[in-house]
Amino acid sequence: MGFLSEKLNEEKVFKDPVHSYVHVRDKIIWDLIGTKEFQRLRRIKQLGTTFLTFHGAEHSRFNHSLGVYEITRRIVDDVFSGRPEWDQDDRLIALCASLLHDLGHGPFSHAFEKVFDLDHEEFTRAIILGDTEVNRILQRAGTDFPKQVAEVIAKTSDKKQVVSLISSQIDADRMDYLLRDAYFTGVSYGFFDMERILRVMRPREDQVVFKHSGMHAIEDYIMSRYQMYWQVYFHPVSRGAEVILTKILHRAKDLNSQGYAFRHEPLHFYSVFEGKLTVEDYLKLDESIILYYFQMWQEEEDAILSDLCRRFVNRNLFKFAEFDPAKEYKKLAELTGLFRKAGIDPEYYLVVDSSSDLPYDFYRPGEEEERLPINLLMKRGDLRELSRESEIVEAISGKRRTDHKLYYPADFLLDDSSKKNIKKQIRSILDF
Amino acid sequence: MGFLSEKLNEEKVFKDPVHSYVHVRDKIIWDLIGTKEFQRLRRIKQLGTTFLTFHGAEHSRFNHSLGVYEITRRIVDDVFSGRPEWDQDDRLIALCASLLHDLGHGPFSHAFEKVFDLDHEEFTRAIILGDTEVNRILQRAGTDFPKQVAEVIAKTSDKKQVVSLISSQIDADRMDYLLRDAYFTGVSYGFFDMERILRVMRPREDQVVFKHSGMHAIEDYIMSRYQMYWQVYFHPVSRGAEVILTKILHRAKDLNSQGYAFRHEPLHFYSVFEGKLTVEDYLKLDESIILYYFQMWQEEEDAILSDLCRRFVNRNLFKFAEFDPAKEYKKLAELTGLFRKAGIDPEYYLVVDSSSDLPYDFYRPGEEEERLPINLLMKRGDLRELSRESEIVEAISGKRRTDHKLYYPADFLLDDSSKKNIKKQIRSILDF
Amino acid sequence: MGFLSEKLNEEKVFKDPVHSYVHVRDKIIWDLIGTKEFQRLRRIKQLGTTFLTFHGAEHSRFNHSLGVYEITRRIVDDVFSGRPEWDQDDRLIALCASLLHDLGHGPFSHAFEKVFDLDHEEFTRAIILGDTEVNRILQRAGTDFPKQVAEVIAKTSDKKQVVSLISSQIDADRMDYLLRDAYFTGVSYGFFDMERILRVMRPREDQVVFKHSGMHAIEDYIMSRYQMYWQVYFHPVSRGAEVILTKILHRAKDLNSQGYAFRHEPLHFYSVFEGKLTVEDYLKLDESIILYYFQMWQEEEDAILSDLCRRFVNRNLFKFAEFDPAKEYKKLAELTGLFRKAGIDPEYYLVVDSSSDLPYDFYRPGEEEERLPINLLMKRGDLRELSRESEIVEAISGKRRTDHKLYYPADFLLDDSSKKNIKKQIRSILDF
Amino acid sequence: MGFLSEKLNEEKVFKDPVHSYVHVRDKIIWDLIGTKEFQRLRRIKQLGTTFLTFHGAEHSRFNHSLGVYEITRRIVDDVFSGRPEWDQDDRLIALCASLLHDLGHGPFSHAFEKVFDLDHEEFTRAIILGDTEVNRILQRAGTDFPKQVAEVIAKTSDKKQVVSLISSQIDADRMDYLLRDAYFTGVSYGFFDMERILRVMRPREDQVVFKHSGMHAIEDYIMSRYQMYWQVYFHPVSRGAEVILTKILHRAKDLNSQGYAFRHEPLHFYSVFEGKLTVEDYLKLDESIILYYFQMWQEEEDAILSDLCRRFVNRNLFKFAEFDPAKEYKKLAELTGLFRKAGIDPEYYLVVDSSSDLPYDFYRPGEEEERLPINLLMKRGDLRELSRESEIVEAISGKRRTDHKLYYPADFLLDDSSKKNIKKQIRSILDF
Repeated sequence: MGFLSEKLNEEKVFKDPVHSYVHVRDKIIWDLIGTKEFQRLRRIKQLGTTFLTFHGAEHSRFNHSLGVYEITRRIVDDVFSGRPEWDQDDRLIALCASLLHDLGHGPFSHAFEKVFDLDHEEFTRAIILGDTEVNRILQRAGTDFPKQVAEVIAKTSDKKQVVSLISSQIDADRMDYLLRDAYFTGVSYGFFDMERILRVMRPREDQVVFKHSGMHAIEDYIMSRYQMYWQVYFHPVSRGAEVILTKILHRAKDLNSQGYAFRHEPLHFYSVFEGKLTVEDYLKLDESIILYYFQMWQEEEDAILSDLCRRFVNRNLFKFAEFDPAKEYKKLAELTGLFRKAGIDPEYYLVVDSSSDLPYDFYRPGEEEERLPINLLMKRGDLRELSRESEIVEAISGKRRTDHKLYYPADFLLDDSSKKNIKKQIRSILDF
Repeated sequence: MGFLSEKLNEEKVFKDPVHSYVHVRDKIIWDLIGTKEFQRLRRIKQLGTTFLTFHGAEHSRFNHSLGVYEITRRIVDDVFSGRPEWDQDDRLIALCASLLHDLGHGPFSHAFEKVFDLDHEEFTRAIILGDTEVNRILQRAGTDFPKQVAEVIAKTSDKKQVVSLISSQIDADRMDYLLRDAYFTGVSYGFFDMERILRVMRPREDQVVFKHSGMHAIEDYIMSRYQMYWQVYFHPVSRGAEVILTKILHRAKDLNSQGYAFRHEPLHFYSVFEGKLTVEDYLKLDESIILYYFQMWQEEEDAILSDLCRRFVNRNLFKFAEFDPAKEYKKLAELTGLFRKAGIDPEYYLVVDSSSDLPYDFYRPGEEEERLPINLLMKRGDLRELSRESEIVEAISGKRRTDHKLYYPADFLLDDSSKKNIKKQIRSILDF
Repeated sequence: MGFLSEKLNEEKVFKDPVHSYVHVRDKIIWDLIGTKEFQRLRRIKQLGTTFLTFHGAEHSRFNHSLGVYEITRRIVDDVFSGRPEWDQDDRLIALCASLLHDLGHGPFSHAFEKVFDLDHEEFTRAIILGDTEVNRILQRAGTDFPKQVAEVIAKTSDKKQVVSLISSQIDADRMDYLLRDAYFTGVSYGFFDMERILRVMRPREDQVVFKHSGMHAIEDYIMSRYQMYWQVYFHPVSRGAEVILTKILHRAKDLNSQGYAFRHEPLHFYSVFEGKLTVEDYLKLDESIILYYFQMWQEEEDAILSDLCRRFVNRNLFKFAEFDPAKEYKKLAELTGLFRKAGIDPEYYLVVDSSSDLPYDFYRPGEEEERLPINLLMKRGDLRELSRESEIVEAISGKRRTDHKLYYPADFLLDDSSKKNIKKQIRSILDF
Repeated sequence: MGFLSEKLNEEKVFKDPVHSYVHVRDKIIWDLIGTKEFQRLRRIKQLGTTFLTFHGAEHSRFNHSLGVYEITRRIVDDVFSGRPEWDQDDRLIALCASLLHDLGHGPFSHAFEKVFDLDHEEFTRAIILGDTEVNRILQRAGTDFPKQVAEVIAKTSDKKQVVSLISSQIDADRMDYLLRDAYFTGVSYGFFDMERILRVMRPREDQVVFKHSGMHAIEDYIMSRYQMYWQVYFHPVSRGAEVILTKILHRAKDLNSQGYAFRHEPLHFYSVFEGKLTVEDYLKLDESIILYYFQMWQEEEDAILSDLCRRFVNRNLFKFAEFDPAKEYKKLAELTGLFRKAGIDPEYYLVVDSSSDLPYDFYRPGEEEERLPINLLMKRGDLRELSRESEIVEAISGKRRTDHKLYYPADFLLDDSSKKNIKKQIRSILDF
């Protein structure tokens, strides 16, 4: 049985630079967009600190969430609708799950989650099931509806087709962010022929498959993904900004645990520091709040906290060098010692950052991160895993690429009377 | 004599979604971009509250400022360079002025300036001439250099060509914002053939003129400008958000003057309220700061302030009706009375907003806002004012278009037991 | 009662650079595209001689016809379908009429029709109703079907909505050609927000109207149309190529009537010259045939014919000067005399060409070319003619713009011993 | 010593949909474009029969040649100019060679060259060095100039940098055709960031290298190339049209050698058939001429020639099946026999077509087609071959991909009384 959905009197649209228009016909979608929990996503950037490298990347998760919804809507309404393998009763779940899939993201998610051991997926679930405007609207479709939406997002639902639409190696989420991030950064690598991919998607028992005739568009999508990861998402300058951000949060947490008296009290942070964050507290956090504190903390007494905040606010970032942990661990140990001697705390100012990506993989049971393969629907109706058909994909399949960089504040290492020789030694090792 | 300019060892570029790349060859430009005063523009949106209507419009003034610089650089280096009518010694002034022309903008400028009687142009001047990183870098080019840059921006410079490049009816500023705002909102109206316009720009004694062969591209630019004003900049929903923003600032100011005890102290606002804003204070203001206060003030005791802040933060905006002040002033008076009776303060909740634009005008001496005409350079070397050659421009020239709307909170006007009849009466007048 | 339409087993698509894809679901459409009469449109350029000015404009009427079909399909299937004012039984007529509306175009239509007094609309009708593959396929939908399709194209049908879709001041034909010609020439003037216009189209009793909320998109469309006319369609260089083309046809016709013995016999032309062109003969004519003759005729004995053909084939065009017939008729007479004296036949080498366009007009009963107005559908359901709502459109409405140019072969007018002085005199009058 | 080049009074531009504008400043370039030999390229399609699959691909080699010139001009004038490793005296050779590199292409080159054993490169050389307008214009720059231009195009010049610009694994020719063919077909695969690639090109002693920072743009270019080959250039439907075209030429040649009396005499073909083609004859051939004959030959008595011509003109193409020559040679032999029995000449109606491409290769000395590698310029000034730095390129490097298809006329194989059973057997083997 399907859930209840009231239609709007007249379709509403949002002008969207990526998909031209986002179309809303269901009142429940319109109302979800209007909730304060969803509006909060306007205050969280889609790409965190990337705007410090690609100045166009100032777009929010609100933007992206509408985009994922629109792609899902087009698949469900224009491609799947009417096909016997697809249960139209799942339409509303798919739409709501796609719209809300990022609802639990906090400000500068990655750094935040890492330092405070949080998980945005748990918060997404908690917001959907908790005492929120979103929950009340979802309830209108049926008592069990919020739970079903949450399960799709958590990938624990047995509606495998719907899960695939939103979380797989080629899904509405990835398609939107590649196109959107390419559009806003201005890099051309992220473009691929989404129209073609949508047209060849087909629902099958427990998955979504792709007609063989669309294989080249999928190859292109996988290459776009690969390029966006290394050109944009793992850009060394953005990672350097991320390093500083992480260290600020880290420092604030440490200072708090040491009983440091903040000039500007971290009211919004206490429950975070103490690991007692409620959903209500969490929803009050967004990037304008975080930036407010960072600006205030520029004037803290603690030299490390204030320095790092000034660096972040004014974009005075760290320099970086290539680093090979396997071969250069001794060099790192040596540098660590020298930084200490120079009075520059290596905990905050000598940081190894590692990025790693697997462009595509077929199913390898038992591995840490099992990925469902992309299956092609052949002319005779059988399925073939993508890398068996595509030489390009076969060539890069399962090849993890990892990159390590060593970040440090170049400006601290310039000559000064006191530590002149140590700094010279450091500069010589870092070769700058 | 030209000012000093050191070149970078290697040209630097910024990836820009509108101009593809922004190229920097001069060290002074590179260093200005790195100042904290310029980086602050990342925290000020180019289109203020427009992102609440067009969700893509989340781009900052930092973005736009780089774009204006890049257009100016292309004109100066690729089109004007080498022409006898152009003094290449003015190159550096043009580049710096174009980069810095918006430096004094504050958070949500228009509302802020209106309520607190401030002027961003004065702040631009003050930042350029004051004790700032920007000033110190400009000084490197010559002691008089900051002053000359400021004069170009203030349009008081006698370097008329340079002033025209940045502030005229067709200049680098307007060209960038039309293209950029079109790109980020996703509306197609703002596009025009900038390449063509740049190619036909020519320096003349005291102005910049355009070869006649580019007339149609200019017509298209003027139509784009017209369309962007009415489709985007004056969009009634954005104006409604602006109304709320203005009323929040207004209310906070009033409460402060009445000695209201804020739960969340407006530390950043005191000097603003008191009209004693220093440049240093001003530079601390940006939109993350303002949004922080608005979020805090959602929990203020004052019902109007907290309600308006909740509306702004959660995008729960006012509804609007067409309004003709000449004919409907009596209706407005009646509504004002009814709002009071219904216990809804009309000062904050019944607001007339007017927008007005003049798409193009030729010179009409003595008028409030004298505009320099766009002059076409004819084949024989003489000049003709644009509207004399273009029938399209002639048709719209000097025609001011004005639009008035009446904003009100529809949700406050729904039936409730106490004021049922009054509200019904209001609804009937407002016809909703 | 609707006509019969068999669906394809699987939707077919054509990759289209303008509309991304052209979708075909009806077997009749697929089969019509496959007929030799429709395939012939591949050998007729959409913009005739414009490719000699804008080298990208090499696209054919085949291209454009698919585009008009696709726009009509989207209107009918995505916008009108299900609306009570629209009779879905008219769908197939609309699709076929839009696909076939240009079927009767000949090679370089305008020149051809002018010289030989032909009418492509008559040929369209004749092909649809004659003994053709197209006719046999249309018959499958019903005996009366070809006639009904032909009547829609001829605007004599009483299915006014369908006629409006294909032939009105804003229709699928015009929308496709503006976008397509802009795309292929590379000029940006032709773009407008077609998505928006399609979304606001509404069927009404005997016309198609547009929701008021789309007015600005329509304004933009009208401006695009205006710009494309003057920038592209009436470009003086293309008109110069058209002049030569016309004069070639003219000369060949004259020579034939004078009994001239062609070295290369004009087999394909005899019935044209004699005004006895059958549909079968007509279908054998296309631009590769015409170009074949022009290449052959470069070696004809007749100096005028061979010269004009060489000019056309090798793009050695005429020069032009502005010309005002009202004021300069005496000058023209003088030049005509001088050309004769110089031994250059003014009939072929001194040509006045006039172009004229009316960007938009409301209904003016009784005028030569009655145009149905664009009507806006207001919020309350009433209609308002566009120029009453739009100041921009009002400003240009009904204003016919006309341009005259005088074409001549500059290379013939350079000094040579014999006619030195006469030519000098001509050059001085023409001021080159 | 540099060659002579006169500048135009004013830069001329061509509006180009791919590069926005093509800029011409040198009189020699302007004059070369105006020659009849260069104008002839307007009558030869860039992609031969591809327009029968991708209807947008109607653009000519004229288009493409201007594009290659423009890319070269931008490299030479904007990137290389002023660099010590580049000799500005080579500028004019580079420009002319890029403009003229395809001058010797004939109508439907590949099929034509294959059947008649011709070589367009030889004709390019012959036109440049022969008694032509092009040669006379090139001579103006210096007596030796035509020869030097021809040598660069023939890759025999010792100006290795210039040769690399126009003929290497990443050159102006390939960059233009990928972008241009993507634009006109409408497929998105061909786009890559050419701006970025141009910016990182550097002249070195005997080659052109690429700064390492542009590696990802080059990877993207190589993937684009791969995709365009398999999506567009080797599209099975286009190859099917090519098969028919080849067979028409083949048949006409055979008939001629058998003394067949053509109803429509192949005047333009005699010298081709007899292998005595002069440059003058060759220049008279273009696609309008060829199409003229094909249209005429639809009415030849010879059943095969007239059938194939009707198929080509009306786009009634062959069907195809996958074919593996290594495993299915017996099947082919069987089919060949059955076709004979069915009275369908297998020589013309059962055709294996093979396509093969090598996306990128480093230098493998001694192999049939030695390819110069793409070298990256590392930070320290050393060079590294691309596939050693790029995992993506390494993965596909040197991997030749080949595809075979078997083409046949499905319509001939449908049931008819006489050969019913044989045809049934054929259909069963071909599985259709």
